[in-house]
Amino acid sequence: MFEKDTYIRRRAELKKMVQNGVIIFFGNNESPCNFPNNGYYPFRQDSSFLYYFGAQRDGLVGVIDIDNDTETLIGNDIDIDDIVWYGAVDSVKDMATQAGVAHSASMKQLKTICYDALRLKRKIHFLPPYRHDTKLQIFDLLGIHPHQQKESASIELIKAVVKMRSVKEDQEVEELERAAEIGYKMHTTAMKLIKPGVTEKFVGGQVSGIAGSYGAMVSFPTIFSQHGEIMHGNPSMAVLEAGRLALCDAGAETMNNYCSDNTRTMPVSGKFTQRQLEIYSIVEACHDLALELSKPGVKYYDVHMDICRLMTDRLKELGLMKGDTEEAVRAGAHAMFLPHGLGHMMGMDVHDMESLDQRYVGFDDEIQPSTQFGTSALRMGRRLEKGFVVTDEPGIYFIPALIDSWKATGHCKEFLNFELLETYKDFGGIRIEDDILITDNGCRIIGKEQIPYHPKDVEDYMAS
Amino acid sequence: MFEKDTYIRRRAELKKMVQNGVIIFFGNNESPCNFPNNGYYPFRQDSSFLYYFGAQRDGLVGVIDIDNDTETLIGNDIDIDDIVWYGAVDSVKDMATQAGVAHSASMKQLKTICYDALRLKRKIHFLPPYRHDTKLQIFDLLGIHPHQQKESASIELIKAVVKMRSVKEDQEVEELERAAEIGYKMHTTAMKLIKPGVTEKFVGGQVSGIAGSYGAMVSFPTIFSQHGEIMHGNPSMAVLEAGRLALCDAGAETMNNYCSDNTRTMPVSGKFTQRQLEIYSIVEACHDLALELSKPGVKYYDVHMDICRLMTDRLKELGLMKGDTEEAVRAGAHAMFLPHGLGHMMGMDVHDMESLDQRYVGFDDEIQPSTQFGTSALRMGRRLEKGFVVTDEPGIYFIPALIDSWKATGHCKEFLNFELLETYKDFGGIRIEDDILITDNGCRIIGKEQIPYHPKDVEDYMAS
Repeated sequence: MFEKDTYIRRRAELKKMVQNGVIIFFGNNESPCNFPNNGYYPFRQDSSFLYYFGAQRDGLVGVIDIDNDTETLIGNDIDIDDIVWYGAVDSVKDMATQAGVAHSASMKQLKTICYDALRLKRKIHFLPPYRHDTKLQIFDLLGIHPHQQKESASIELIKAVVKMRSVKEDQEVEELERAAEIGYKMHTTAMKLIKPGVTEKFVGGQVSGIAGSYGAMVSFPTIFSQHGEIMHGNPSMAVLEAGRLALCDAGAETMNNYCSDNTRTMPVSGKFTQRQLEIYSIVEACHDLALELSKPGVKYYDVHMDICRLMTDRLKELGLMKGDTEEAVRAGAHAMFLPHGLGHMMGMDVHDMESLDQRYVGFDDEIQPSTQFGTSALRMGRRLEKGFVVTDEPGIYFIPALIDSWKATGHCKEFLNFELLETYKDFGGIRIEDDILITDNGCRIIGKEQIPYHPKDVEDYMAS
Repeated sequence: MFEKDTYIRRRAELKKMVQNGVIIFFGNNESPCNFPNNGYYPFRQDSSFLYYFGAQRDGLVGVIDIDNDTETLIGNDIDIDDIVWYGAVDSVKDMATQAGVAHSASMKQLKTICYDALRLKRKIHFLPPYRHDTKLQIFDLLGIHPHQQKESASIELIKAVVKMRSVKEDQEVEELERAAEIGYKMHTTAMKLIKPGVTEKFVGGQVSGIAGSYGAMVSFPTIFSQHGEIMHGNPSMAVLEAGRLALCDAGAETMNNYCSDNTRTMPVSGKFTQRQLEIYSIVEACHDLALELSKPGVKYYDVHMDICRLMTDRLKELGLMKGDTEEAVRAGAHAMFLPHGLGHMMGMDVHDMESLDQRYVGFDDEIQPSTQFGTSALRMGRRLEKGFVVTDEPGIYFIPALIDSWKATGHCKEFLNFELLETYKDFGGIRIEDDILITDNGCRIIGKEQIPYHPKDVEDYMAS
């Protein structure tokens, strides 16, 4: 965790913004995988809780009473049985002190706090819960039915938290750089391991292992697949085949839970074919254009649309698209190739703050999410500010089911060459992704060492 | 998954045992880690659902209507949006066919099924839920408050499932052998990586990565620590130090979710010290005694107690314990060193069926769980049967907090040499664990290749 002044400052700022009421931050609990108690997934603290209270243990709740200006860290201390099984941990009081929180209390006392606040009809602010145990906890404590909790969450609190977490502090950028270092190791290891005959699982497992070796864990389940056209494809037992592309989308979390998120697409044989290069170079150009355009004041929605236009122009050159570029993009024809957005916020969550609702995180009063297939998957559209970290991740995919579906209905047929598309059904998909930090007047890729992505660099690295 | 006849046969047997009513098996859903939708932990299907229905997808429910002799696999088919993101998967109807289930239905129809069964006051059997989303699902469907569900679970169903899953079929043993092969790779890799200067996290991450490379995932979060005395210690950023022991408790799940679970304890420097060998050889002797004693008809509780007696005898020779062995074990004095049980059931869950309640899984009318510290942590006490798979995992730990606690209260002071114990506070802990299959008239360790555990073998392997 950071110095306690960090947390004191953050909470003070938050209180100023939310103005009144009681704020409750629910920390995460252990999450059962296939049985309770010992069958847990690795523990992951809630990011907003971490941001304001810093403590990594399960079973904690942070309360900020704005009206009475008191802060309390709540949790039960562990006993000798827990120590035997899980080792000694700091007391709740000690954890409170480390985060500059004056008070600590037990879970039982949280009931009283909630009961009193409800009785006095005080405003209780909480963030929308995403874990079902937290939903049950809120049901128990505040009497709000799980299905009503999303609407009962505090919009003032969401907006304040988003405002603060969106702009990364210098010490947070340092953590992101650390995550990028691990990400570099993950991706360059993949480049070295890829060859015909090894399974997708083998490479995916090794890549994930590196995240565990140098950081807390993977920032999301590693995507490693010859079927790059499946956006979130799990590594399978399929064997890598010469001539195909392998897509690796993977990242790490540091011990302080800051993330990296990169994607590279590599030729299994070590050399791109001419046809692969034609598509790859379009994705590369889109990736680089986003780097050029991203700076404070620019809407990321506009950067996304510029990328769509460039992609359409270039796909027209290959004969895969046709017609007027503006009209094609307006109709969403490019989404045949790019059915997702250019990027998303990145930070302590790899899709940063996604639990707080896209409408507040990636959009605002000025820019609303689109409902059109493809653009609707854009998670970040609002104006960039200095200190924002977003992903730059264009891709081109040939998705047989989507080709068949649009062909059958004739959707966007005036902009698409379905006959030629048919011959690309075995192509797979290409994505190139980096995390970019918005600077004073531009942006830069996070990571001291750049994971190779220019085709020649990828080939050279794979051969080295 | 196995051939469909397997699932047809299993369900037929189950129906015969449960006799009447409607059985509902809730499959698992995706489990959110730090945000919903994309922030999931790796998917893990519920083991009992897998056992009777075989399907690996999230969002499924299996219904067996015994009275009307119908079986239905329930779930919603995915749409083109899902295919774009996650790839094509079999339809619910196809998955039903693969498991020999005649009917398939949508989630909406499940509501009707539940509504009708409730209206007609039919007996509805379900297993105790351990995931909070399943608890909410049961709350929605059956109107049972989450806190009342454990007591509302069907004991007939629990007992029938335990009876069946406890005895492993030949094809299940083959899967366990596959898991053991991955486990062998994990542990021998650890032996090669251990050396002064590397972090616990480094080794732990690499070991976990192997599980992902060759199987579905780790069978539980890898324990790798110089603090072996912490039973479930997470790998830390601490650096391995010459002279210390490193304990590795790790296992894999195959693609069909059968587990391995082994522990080895190794000297960081590659050579055990004399003091380490003295303790190690006791654990080794206990491990081997359990192998000798385990056979059909024997109570695993008795094997556990025999191990405690042997351990006490040997610790008396070292001067760490004293007094009469029988009395010491009756008083639970040995739990200072071995605060857990000799083993647990192993199978599709690494603590097999732990969600179904220890009272039914590891105990029965004849043998009840103990309440004494140490023996109370024994998860398996009942008579062994051919086809059972249990872990054999004795350990000796020097837990500073436990030493201090018992010393302060004088607990078991007539059997313990607290003065000598004080000098072992920096020792750590030793555990040796293998998975054993109960055979016709004895048992055997699962795994074609034995992970080295005799001290000389461990040292030789580390040096090789």
